[in-house]
Amino acid sequence: MNQDYIQPNEWSILEEGFDVERVKSSESLFSIGNGVMGQRANFEENYSGPSFQGSYIGGVYYPDKTKVGWWKNGYPEYFAKVLNAPNWIGVNVFINDEALDLFTCKKVEDFKRELNMKEGFHRRSFIATLPNEIEISVKATRFLSIVEDELGAIDFEIEVLNSDAEVRFEPYLDGGITNTDANWEERFWKTLEVKSEGNKGFVLSKTLKTEFHVNTYMQSEVLLNAEKQDVDFTETKTADSLTFSYSIKAEKGQKVSLRKYAGYVTDMNHKRSDLVEAASKVLDYATKAGFSKLLQDQKEAWEKIWEMADITIEGDVKAQQGIRFNIFQLNQTYLGKDERLNIGPKGFTGEKYGGSTYWDTEAYCIPFYMATKDQQVARNLLTYRYNHLDKAIENAEKLGFTNGAALYPMVTMNGEESHNEWEITFEEIHRNGAMVYAIYNYVRYTGDFDYIPEKGLEVMIAIARFWQQRVNFSEHRNKYVMLGVTGPNEYENNVHNNWYTNYLAKWCIEYCLETIEKVKEAYAEDYKRVMGKTRLNEGEMAKWREVAENMYFPYSEKHEVFLQQDGFLDKEIVPIADLDKSQRPINQKWSWDRILRSCYIKQADVLQGFYFFEDHFSKKELEKHFDYYEPITVHESSLSPCVHSIQAALLGRTKQAYEFYLRTSRLDLDDYNKEVEQGCHITSMAGTWMSIVEGFGGMRVKDDQLSFNPTIPEDWKTYSFKVNFRDQILKVKVSADKTVFYLEGDNAIEINVNGKAVELQPNQELEV
Amino acid sequence: MNQDYIQPNEWSILEEGFDVERVKSSESLFSIGNGVMGQRANFEENYSGPSFQGSYIGGVYYPDKTKVGWWKNGYPEYFAKVLNAPNWIGVNVFINDEALDLFTCKKVEDFKRELNMKEGFHRRSFIATLPNEIEISVKATRFLSIVEDELGAIDFEIEVLNSDAEVRFEPYLDGGITNTDANWEERFWKTLEVKSEGNKGFVLSKTLKTEFHVNTYMQSEVLLNAEKQDVDFTETKTADSLTFSYSIKAEKGQKVSLRKYAGYVTDMNHKRSDLVEAASKVLDYATKAGFSKLLQDQKEAWEKIWEMADITIEGDVKAQQGIRFNIFQLNQTYLGKDERLNIGPKGFTGEKYGGSTYWDTEAYCIPFYMATKDQQVARNLLTYRYNHLDKAIENAEKLGFTNGAALYPMVTMNGEESHNEWEITFEEIHRNGAMVYAIYNYVRYTGDFDYIPEKGLEVMIAIARFWQQRVNFSEHRNKYVMLGVTGPNEYENNVHNNWYTNYLAKWCIEYCLETIEKVKEAYAEDYKRVMGKTRLNEGEMAKWREVAENMYFPYSEKHEVFLQQDGFLDKEIVPIADLDKSQRPINQKWSWDRILRSCYIKQADVLQGFYFFEDHFSKKELEKHFDYYEPITVHESSLSPCVHSIQAALLGRTKQAYEFYLRTSRLDLDDYNKEVEQGCHITSMAGTWMSIVEGFGGMRVKDDQLSFNPTIPEDWKTYSFKVNFRDQILKVKVSADKTVFYLEGDNAIEINVNGKAVELQPNQELEV
Repeated sequence: MNQDYIQPNEWSILEEGFDVERVKSSESLFSIGNGVMGQRANFEENYSGPSFQGSYIGGVYYPDKTKVGWWKNGYPEYFAKVLNAPNWIGVNVFINDEALDLFTCKKVEDFKRELNMKEGFHRRSFIATLPNEIEISVKATRFLSIVEDELGAIDFEIEVLNSDAEVRFEPYLDGGITNTDANWEERFWKTLEVKSEGNKGFVLSKTLKTEFHVNTYMQSEVLLNAEKQDVDFTETKTADSLTFSYSIKAEKGQKVSLRKYAGYVTDMNHKRSDLVEAASKVLDYATKAGFSKLLQDQKEAWEKIWEMADITIEGDVKAQQGIRFNIFQLNQTYLGKDERLNIGPKGFTGEKYGGSTYWDTEAYCIPFYMATKDQQVARNLLTYRYNHLDKAIENAEKLGFTNGAALYPMVTMNGEESHNEWEITFEEIHRNGAMVYAIYNYVRYTGDFDYIPEKGLEVMIAIARFWQQRVNFSEHRNKYVMLGVTGPNEYENNVHNNWYTNYLAKWCIEYCLETIEKVKEAYAEDYKRVMGKTRLNEGEMAKWREVAENMYFPYSEKHEVFLQQDGFLDKEIVPIADLDKSQRPINQKWSWDRILRSCYIKQADVLQGFYFFEDHFSKKELEKHFDYYEPITVHESSLSPCVHSIQAALLGRTKQAYEFYLRTSRLDLDDYNKEVEQGCHITSMAGTWMSIVEGFGGMRVKDDQLSFNPTIPEDWKTYSFKVNFRDQILKVKVSADKTVFYLEGDNAIEINVNGKAVELQPNQELEV
Repeated sequence: MNQDYIQPNEWSILEEGFDVERVKSSESLFSIGNGVMGQRANFEENYSGPSFQGSYIGGVYYPDKTKVGWWKNGYPEYFAKVLNAPNWIGVNVFINDEALDLFTCKKVEDFKRELNMKEGFHRRSFIATLPNEIEISVKATRFLSIVEDELGAIDFEIEVLNSDAEVRFEPYLDGGITNTDANWEERFWKTLEVKSEGNKGFVLSKTLKTEFHVNTYMQSEVLLNAEKQDVDFTETKTADSLTFSYSIKAEKGQKVSLRKYAGYVTDMNHKRSDLVEAASKVLDYATKAGFSKLLQDQKEAWEKIWEMADITIEGDVKAQQGIRFNIFQLNQTYLGKDERLNIGPKGFTGEKYGGSTYWDTEAYCIPFYMATKDQQVARNLLTYRYNHLDKAIENAEKLGFTNGAALYPMVTMNGEESHNEWEITFEEIHRNGAMVYAIYNYVRYTGDFDYIPEKGLEVMIAIARFWQQRVNFSEHRNKYVMLGVTGPNEYENNVHNNWYTNYLAKWCIEYCLETIEKVKEAYAEDYKRVMGKTRLNEGEMAKWREVAENMYFPYSEKHEVFLQQDGFLDKEIVPIADLDKSQRPINQKWSWDRILRSCYIKQADVLQGFYFFEDHFSKKELEKHFDYYEPITVHESSLSPCVHSIQAALLGRTKQAYEFYLRTSRLDLDDYNKEVEQGCHITSMAGTWMSIVEGFGGMRVKDDQLSFNPTIPEDWKTYSFKVNFRDQILKVKVSADKTVFYLEGDNAIEINVNGKAVELQPNQELEV
């Protein structure tokens, strides 16, 4: 744990006391989003202290020219990244002409922040003494509407405590923003027009190169003691910005507030020529409803989300707060309404990793969205990749593959590869397998096999082709080998025969062949279309089969474990427990070569394979592998502890599972990795959810049936979760002595609990 | 071959006809240098076409901030590179106010360039028709004096052919230059003062960060029909530049010329406060001597160099031109007078590779300098590394090594690592072995064992320490293994047990232990000092021995060859001959991952080891290894063909040896690698020399004796070379039927020819 200033609370993230050192961390933790746009919890008023400004629009990206020390053939020309968008939250505040700036105030007292996860808003309150000795009490509330997802709203309320004063609010829009994560310090935006219509303001901008057109807009109201006031205003325009200025006299003890409605409309959803009109409509909707009604709607909308997605934990407030924070942030990042969007590793909380799509989505996020949303949401995530198939084929062609083989990118916004580090970009190809695994996982869970003939099969064929071309036959071993890859454990680069990758490749081919048979039988039309389009023939499939049947897997007879890769036994194996603490985290303390030749594992690699293909192995085999690899795993990826938590639970090691759970669920709140200032680890939050549902709850799907194997950590009284399984909602509540199941819906279903079949009647509790 | 415009000639590099497409290539090929400074063959007068401006001062460097896509722990903060220095060659020319600019002339005829290697100058002549229809004949001669190495001289002669005209010469100095190879497009120089004293001009500059102070200076004379004229001049100063303007009327058919003396004096050799005075002295020396005398001195000085270093080839003009070009460029780059200087891979002909020091010096250049210069020159090269020992220890510490272990940098100017690509910087550690091999090679050749107790041993101990710490014990193999390295074949990264590196490591330790014994016996004083300083004890040496005795070497029983690295047999082995030509060079056609997993070898790796340690293996073993690796070697490093040429000659495959020789000797002249515009491959030129002396000549040193085993390529009538062996000069002339030896000096020596001992009497020919 690296910080512990977040107050434990079941439903809110709370901070008390103002500390400039914590501003950037809190800007990440208190981020808000609505699945379409999101922003760091920057202050509305000017703040001259250290801060990391960020406001992001899902799907709006910029191709930043690649920066690289030594160019390698095949590197992409640019890195497509989500970019800091024009600022609409700004409200500068002056009291008797003195600017409010928490960095320069004489005193800041009673500073509180709340991220209200239940109702979906961010609130900040404090009492500040300005340099001119005026003391004010401030309460600023802000949210991004999930009902009207182009809209945000701010209520900035001030009470002057020690005298009468003139309060001046200056709400503004600013298109002249910069990106922290810019390779060449270039500007990414061009402001096209700064425009006002009455008290409506608009800044029309476009991203350079990609030409996304965005209209950032605002409209404000001034209130005195909660009564709307008719206040004159002036406006100031610059090339990039628009500021309205509202002045109002407040007597001591009176409350004045500015309500600002603002947001973005983009040409992803509107015609370019309609952007002002579209924004104006949203503003009319907002001002008509008013702040309170909008907030009420927000609360109700979040209630609905929580109704389905909530996990309760009794007896452990920090664990409860942790899991809700994870669920809340996931929902802020992606709500599954738009198949063009995806889940960036930092969501809308920072710029690291370019805000782009990684294999995290397929490997970690799909289960959460499948179980807590309508199954269309997961289908949209699959379709996102289906829509990128042509680009994935182009990407493979750039690397010398042929015949429609596809390599999905490591990092992408638009389907093209953005990453430029050869050992990742060209070699961390296991990501391709995750695309297929996600399809398999989706069909297993939802039963929606139709997706495969419709879309999935084309992806699967292109990926099977890739694997077959990517291996080569080793005469020496009389097997197919896969040279030069990087597994999920990125602390090994350019290894040969990474077990996970080889296993996944073999499985992808076999699953594809098996699926082709099914489609052939049951979807003749689709079969014909796909086979025609892909020109797949028996000869090629025979080659695939040959590879799958003769794939090489490194194995140690002595340890009875599959080896992470060739040569693993040449390493010096020293358990992490024996490594001096001063050496950790090794990614900060050791040079890269030392990390590479050490035995230490960044994240589950062989065990990731055992997680994906649990039913291919016995529990005893799992145990052997867990005991071999876990002691040398440093979990320096946020994606690692969850898999270990689930496997420890399966092995009956509840205490260890709980330790891994804690590490994943409060990773950001307690800033385990000393980097929360850069943003939150959004995608791994889905792993936290899995730790509970699949880990402690032991939920699995097999043969169209749910099964459970519940355990509970010692400190917990109960925990509960809900899953949507094929349009029926199942609530599971676990305590030490029993598990209670409650099924919503119309039909009885059979589930399996601790190995025994159990029939659940709808709308009826069942205790096991 | 990619270009063939260079005219064959035994003593000169010649170009005929003006082609804007060839300008950058010729700027590289016609580069001049004097071991202290050097420059690309840029035109003196303004040229508005594509050009790559470069003028370099040995040892003056700039630490350019590292540019990297994804930072890895251990990367250096900057890349120290030789930088483009202020321009002193500039002479703008106006005829009746019309600027001479070959890019905009109406006509350019009879364009000729000559790099006169015998006499050491560059000359360019042409007839140009200016836009104003005036036709002029120009002859511009330039050289950098190797007699007075701070001085350069230009004679720019013009004859107006079709009318009388006013000729205006504007010689200038310009400190406002930029670097083509700048990571962040920053300026590297600050101009401190622009100053004139009469017709002497000075631009005082310093490099930013490193604060090298450089005074760039000039003085000019105007001549009419070879008579010095007293011409008035005006001067123009800007913040960075100084221009003198001389106008003279020339009648049709008269020759006017400007003679410019110019160059650099730096605070590497003078007090900062004396830089103007020092420059002024050089100018007085130059103007007093005059251009013709300076050129005569130059010719004589080069005669002396050629007297010792020349290799003649009768019957093959292109081969003759090639070898002389190599010898000439090596001498232009490094003359061995200053132990602070070294041999950059591009010398003074370009900016690629930072102009810095690589292992090329130790592995490839030392033999040339040992044999063609006084042995002090090679000693200076060794001392250069000795002086960097502390930095090499710091460098190793950064990577986690302790106890005085040293890792010499991959790329350096001042002893610190500059390179930033983990697979090279941290892993291409065989370079450390080359440092020790160079000491061994030097002592073997010169007999100067004193160097070891004096300096070499400390380096050897620090490197032995590194190897012992760098390996780890593999229980699995019951041997020491070396994980995560890159061998000389950079088309493999992060491999395990690279045979060459392991072999070199073992040898370094053994040679160090053996040497310590010798020093202990014969240099008691030094022994005590070194052991005290390094705190080396028996216990540590026992550990070294343990490692050396139990080092693992990958070997294939089936092929009876040492394997380049672990897992090499898993590759698909397809001889280069079977690879479609359209796929080559693979470094331009293939993505990096494909190169890595292919079997193709960039440059000699196992064979490099066989070259270094030829007497450790039988000829039969060499043959096996040569036949295994050569067919899959693509020679995409300039350092590769020479080793193969030597080994092919040793195996009696003279024809193949000749093919490799051609490839190395005319690499730049014929632009085999399509990159000569960036500069010449200086360090590999020493390999060309080895191809003849060690390859065809079969020269070796063993037990303080020279041996020869001459062969001759079919097309050659004779070839001859000279070597300085322990202060006696031996000339060897080989023809198909005999070899003639001629020994200069006072004492008879015994040599070995074709396996038989032969006694050579001084100053007497001996035919074998």
